Amino acid sequence: MGASMNNLGIVKRNIDRADRQAVERLSRFGVATIHEAMGRVGLMQPYMRPIYPDAQVCGTAVTVLLQPGDNWMMHVAAEQIQEGDLVVAACTVDNTDGFFGDLLATSYRARGAKGLIIDGGVRDVKDLTEMRFPVFSRAVSARGTVKATLGSVNIPVVCAGALVNPGDVIVADADGVVVVPAAVAHQAAEAAAVREANEGDKRARLAKGELGLDMYKMREPLAKAGLKYID
Amino acid sequence: MGASMNNLGIVKRNIDRADRQAVERLSRFGVATIHEAMGRVGLMQPYMRPIYPDAQVCGTAVTVLLQPGDNWMMHVAAEQIQEGDLVVAACTVDNTDGFFGDLLATSYRARGAKGLIIDGGVRDVKDLTEMRFPVFSRAVSARGTVKATLGSVNIPVVCAGALVNPGDVIVADADGVVVVPAAVAHQAAEAAAVREANEGDKRARLAKGELGLDMYKMREPLAKAGLKYID
Amino acid sequence: MGASMNNLGIVKRNIDRADRQAVERLSRFGVATIHEAMGRVGLMQPYMRPIYPDAQVCGTAVTVLLQPGDNWMMHVAAEQIQEGDLVVAACTVDNTDGFFGDLLATSYRARGAKGLIIDGGVRDVKDLTEMRFPVFSRAVSARGTVKATLGSVNIPVVCAGALVNPGDVIVADADGVVVVPAAVAHQAAEAAAVREANEGDKRARLAKGELGLDMYKMREPLAKAGLKYID
Amino acid sequence: MGASMNNLGIVKRNIDRADRQAVERLSRFGVATIHEAMGRVGLMQPYMRPIYPDAQVCGTAVTVLLQPGDNWMMHVAAEQIQEGDLVVAACTVDNTDGFFGDLLATSYRARGAKGLIIDGGVRDVKDLTEMRFPVFSRAVSARGTVKATLGSVNIPVVCAGALVNPGDVIVADADGVVVVPAAVAHQAAEAAAVREANEGDKRARLAKGELGLDMYKMREPLAKAGLKYID
Amino acid sequence: MGASMNNLGIVKRNIDRADRQAVERLSRFGVATIHEAMGRVGLMQPYMRPIYPDAQVCGTAVTVLLQPGDNWMMHVAAEQIQEGDLVVAACTVDNTDGFFGDLLATSYRARGAKGLIIDGGVRDVKDLTEMRFPVFSRAVSARGTVKATLGSVNIPVVCAGALVNPGDVIVADADGVVVVPAAVAHQAAEAAAVREANEGDKRARLAKGELGLDMYKMREPLAKAGLKYID
Amino acid sequence: MGASMNNLGIVKRNIDRADRQAVERLSRFGVATIHEAMGRVGLMQPYMRPIYPDAQVCGTAVTVLLQPGDNWMMHVAAEQIQEGDLVVAACTVDNTDGFFGDLLATSYRARGAKGLIIDGGVRDVKDLTEMRFPVFSRAVSARGTVKATLGSVNIPVVCAGALVNPGDVIVADADGVVVVPAAVAHQAAEAAAVREANEGDKRARLAKGELGLDMYKMREPLAKAGLKYID
Repeated sequence: MGASMNNLGIVKRNIDRADRQAVERLSRFGVATIHEAMGRVGLMQPYMRPIYPDAQVCGTAVTVLLQPGDNWMMHVAAEQIQEGDLVVAACTVDNTDGFFGDLLATSYRARGAKGLIIDGGVRDVKDLTEMRFPVFSRAVSARGTVKATLGSVNIPVVCAGALVNPGDVIVADADGVVVVPAAVAHQAAEAAAVREANEGDKRARLAKGELGLDMYKMREPLAKAGLKYID
Repeated sequence: MGASMNNLGIVKRNIDRADRQAVERLSRFGVATIHEAMGRVGLMQPYMRPIYPDAQVCGTAVTVLLQPGDNWMMHVAAEQIQEGDLVVAACTVDNTDGFFGDLLATSYRARGAKGLIIDGGVRDVKDLTEMRFPVFSRAVSARGTVKATLGSVNIPVVCAGALVNPGDVIVADADGVVVVPAAVAHQAAEAAAVREANEGDKRARLAKGELGLDMYKMREPLAKAGLKYID
Repeated sequence: MGASMNNLGIVKRNIDRADRQAVERLSRFGVATIHEAMGRVGLMQPYMRPIYPDAQVCGTAVTVLLQPGDNWMMHVAAEQIQEGDLVVAACTVDNTDGFFGDLLATSYRARGAKGLIIDGGVRDVKDLTEMRFPVFSRAVSARGTVKATLGSVNIPVVCAGALVNPGDVIVADADGVVVVPAAVAHQAAEAAAVREANEGDKRARLAKGELGLDMYKMREPLAKAGLKYID
Repeated sequence: MGASMNNLGIVKRNIDRADRQAVERLSRFGVATIHEAMGRVGLMQPYMRPIYPDAQVCGTAVTVLLQPGDNWMMHVAAEQIQEGDLVVAACTVDNTDGFFGDLLATSYRARGAKGLIIDGGVRDVKDLTEMRFPVFSRAVSARGTVKATLGSVNIPVVCAGALVNPGDVIVADADGVVVVPAAVAHQAAEAAAVREANEGDKRARLAKGELGLDMYKMREPLAKAGLKYID
Repeated sequence: MGASMNNLGIVKRNIDRADRQAVERLSRFGVATIHEAMGRVGLMQPYMRPIYPDAQVCGTAVTVLLQPGDNWMMHVAAEQIQEGDLVVAACTVDNTDGFFGDLLATSYRARGAKGLIIDGGVRDVKDLTEMRFPVFSRAVSARGTVKATLGSVNIPVVCAGALVNPGDVIVADADGVVVVPAAVAHQAAEAAAVREANEGDKRARLAKGELGLDMYKMREPLAKAGLKYID
Repeated sequence: MGASMNNLGIVKRNIDRADRQAVERLSRFGVATIHEAMGRVGLMQPYMRPIYPDAQVCGTAVTVLLQPGDNWMMHVAAEQIQEGDLVVAACTVDNTDGFFGDLLATSYRARGAKGLIIDGGVRDVKDLTEMRFPVFSRAVSARGTVKATLGSVNIPVVCAGALVNPGDVIVADADGVVVVPAAVAHQAAEAAAVREANEGDKRARLAKGELGLDMYKMREPLAKAGLKYID
């Protein structure tokens, strides 16, 4: 009965992945652009940081729910990876243990994984950096884990404050990690494209010294809100 | 288009609340018991603390998604409260502002609310304590808020690390806050009752000096795991 | 030369205290009310907590700048206390050592001090509670301090994120700590009185079930902002 | 071989407890006094807080090393408790799970334990408070634990930043938790008594308005350090 | 009335900037040297970090007070920038939202700004790094902001624990961020030069193996303080 | 008497360093490998980070106990350094001041030190990076320190949660910092070698797409633990 209530000890094999083409389009945009295009939602907490400065990744989520100090499910997840996926690992409590290292990265890459997003710790970061295997994590820690308690694979998880369903698109770069629900992937890519198209012109005008105050027509609303200039 | 992607600016009026009787049964158990009965899931982060030591509450969730420093949606939520509900307020980012005070508590109580769970700050805690209005929050803060930006009411929210759907049962006491999905409320109450029934006997045996090592038959698995006694 | 650049090693004897009557008026209001009345500024960080639940205090600030692990200046400050003052102690770095205990509290009270606000640790909290000497602090810690390095007394300090000038009014209660600059003490008291006068009527209407949505006429601006009700 | 390197999976049965009489003497002093008397060492981190405001305890340490999310060793420790002991539980990583509740407290008390110091979480705090079973912990959390991985009992542990050897005296009150090595327990009690004897007279003088500046003869060293009074 | 009490909604156009030549001299020294030369004051909290490892900047402060999640004032500030300024942005509460990105950086640079110090988050860090636009911030976050609530420009602000007045000199490098009040800029530059002149000789002597114990004549004061050597 | 109780004000000159050859062998392995080989113990907290990404160091510990804001003992320690040592500095309380900079690094290197592990702050990180002097620290901070209070050198210390005895081997790299007690240095090196020998083969098999599930024979224990595959 426990299982039906708590969703633990389950591996879902068939998941609905976001459309390939939408994923490909989203991969061309930065996290900040996508986040704005979606209406400013879907970001993970800013404590999620890349293990090397220029790490970036875009893929469909295979989700993992871990128990603290236990990386058994990371091995179970490997079998569920398809080309173009990345793994999103959440933990039942705050934990910084090193759940993932270069051996698992070798295995994940061999299965087609593009990277890892983990609300926990990772290790072998020198090797991972040399492999150019992108990881975004809460911490770096050499501390190893056991294989004793069940979690789950491909259930909905809360990772670094964001809800992730299996198959959602995840985009990560130096600015953070954003979740794009599979159902709105095309719509988000479209909105991101529109947004980015507008930016080139704005950048040029600002570079010439035009003020955002004028370009965005802020002077009137600021005055209306009561802004006062004094000398 | 933004709205359909980001779920902001929405108030859902009709939600499926957990069965009354299941809620009533769950209200008789402590948070730790329910959490164990469900297979150790559903807890909010331990930073959620009661504003007075013996606060406790059980009810069905009306959910709110707040923007930082803005409590507009707390007023919108009031209209959606029915007798026996409590309000669960999440915020789009970590924020400790005082979104809630004695006036809102007066209004919520008049509408039938049993309490508040908020991943943010509250104020007027002296008054709230005198009113015996149970609040579990991330922080206490006198800092006030504006009413300028839309959030939502009765959408799924991530509150203090836990996913809450409108209508779910929330139980909170000195040990923390647990979420029981509406669909498993009866099952969880049943499991909690079974669990609690077992505890009286155990407590009596332990009080007489019997060891958990013997009562739970741990000696053999401990030896098998390699435990060594030395002098 | 160092001294003139760094304001260390200085005790200012004559300070301009806020007007007595304004202080007395402010003492009748809660921190949240005063903070709102001032336009939502002047609060210390919410990590400042009372050492006992119903501690509250209002007085004029004698300021102290401490070095980490060193409470020498707390003794120097005692001599500068006048009836109706409270001491506001900042530290040059984040530090939780126990700079203050029951002996200093005895001395401060004998000099006329109403309480202590300290961005550091305090100890002997059982004794301080029995003395009903109100203290708001960053931490409780038994760890003692040395008397080896100079700080200053009655210079402007940044305490828990707020700028405090000697003579400013400080009000603290369960909701937090607010700084009222001496020059606007009367104005702030007046605004707080106006604010509080309005609250009784609002409370009564909300208690009868009237919604804030209607009482504050929020429905139109919410609709204008794009709020949508769905079923 | 692992075991000999890592001290895991070990229970030491015979430990050298501090002298009874020294423990009894130390139990009469506050934590701040003992810490000062020892020369300002031995304190645990200030995040260790009592579960009820007036909790206090003094006893000899039975030590436990826990794995995160696993309380198996708490049961193993019960058998090693003798009258007058308290249990000091450390964890191999930062973890706030609820390792201890009212059943274990019942068992520990039946074995003669005076309380618990735990660098982790506890639950059933309402029951523990009613039992008046003193616990000092890093957190309160309803989250339960498994029984799957070995730690150790009665090895030296680092608990909340302090080294604790089995048999050491632990004193805890509202100000914090201090460790007195068994070998210096008498000496520490003696020094605490001397210190406390001096305080009554000082308190009386300060209460009459005498300044610490004069009583402790600080004026000359302050002037020598360069303190300047300005108007 | 609010405005006069709370300093919100104000833009001060004419500010007294530190002397150009003093700024230029200060730009040649590291933060640690200036901080020591001033007598160990004026540092922001160490959580302020550069967005790329070798970022460094020196300039006169245009100050901004932000509301959480709102970057309206960052645009207002742009107009107040003069050649040689940098912007120092504080926030009314702890907030890590991404208030600043590559478009604002383009605008600020076009106006003559040398960089940004912000007690909040920034985004587009890859672009900012390519632009070599130095930013020191509390966080990196893709999360965008609204433009709805007034703050102020060129009022005194508390940024990362340090008081900054408009026109003060700010120096930032890998070691942190230091504030030099405009009035003591020459004096600080002079003291820094003296300090640095002494260091070359010391470095050479230490490199040859001479001990600081001897070079700084510490042996006698250490013995006097009671240091004991044992074998 | 204080000194005998509190271990402050002591410098131990003769310490038993781990065997040279064992140190040399350990220097060839990564921190994660050694930590696993020892049975998953001995790691410092993950907040200890290198000041430049590829810093790494292995040596025998000269230990230092610091007082907050005071680096006097760092100079005392210099004299105790022998070729092949590194310095491990702990502090009596949490403190992030800059206890160490390029002058001390020059001195330490001249005495034969390989690097520094410090549970506090360091400064001059640009210079230290150019010197390629490896430092692992809790923080970077320009804030300087005084020389006024005694700590100790070569006593057992708790550094970032780990117990370090003088003469122990410390290995640090991008994954963290591990302590190998001198007595088990050979044993640990042996176990690390065995462990590493196994990894090459595993890596090759995983790279070809073999699953850890099969290679480690996890399928049966997972099924026994109750793992269920669903579609």
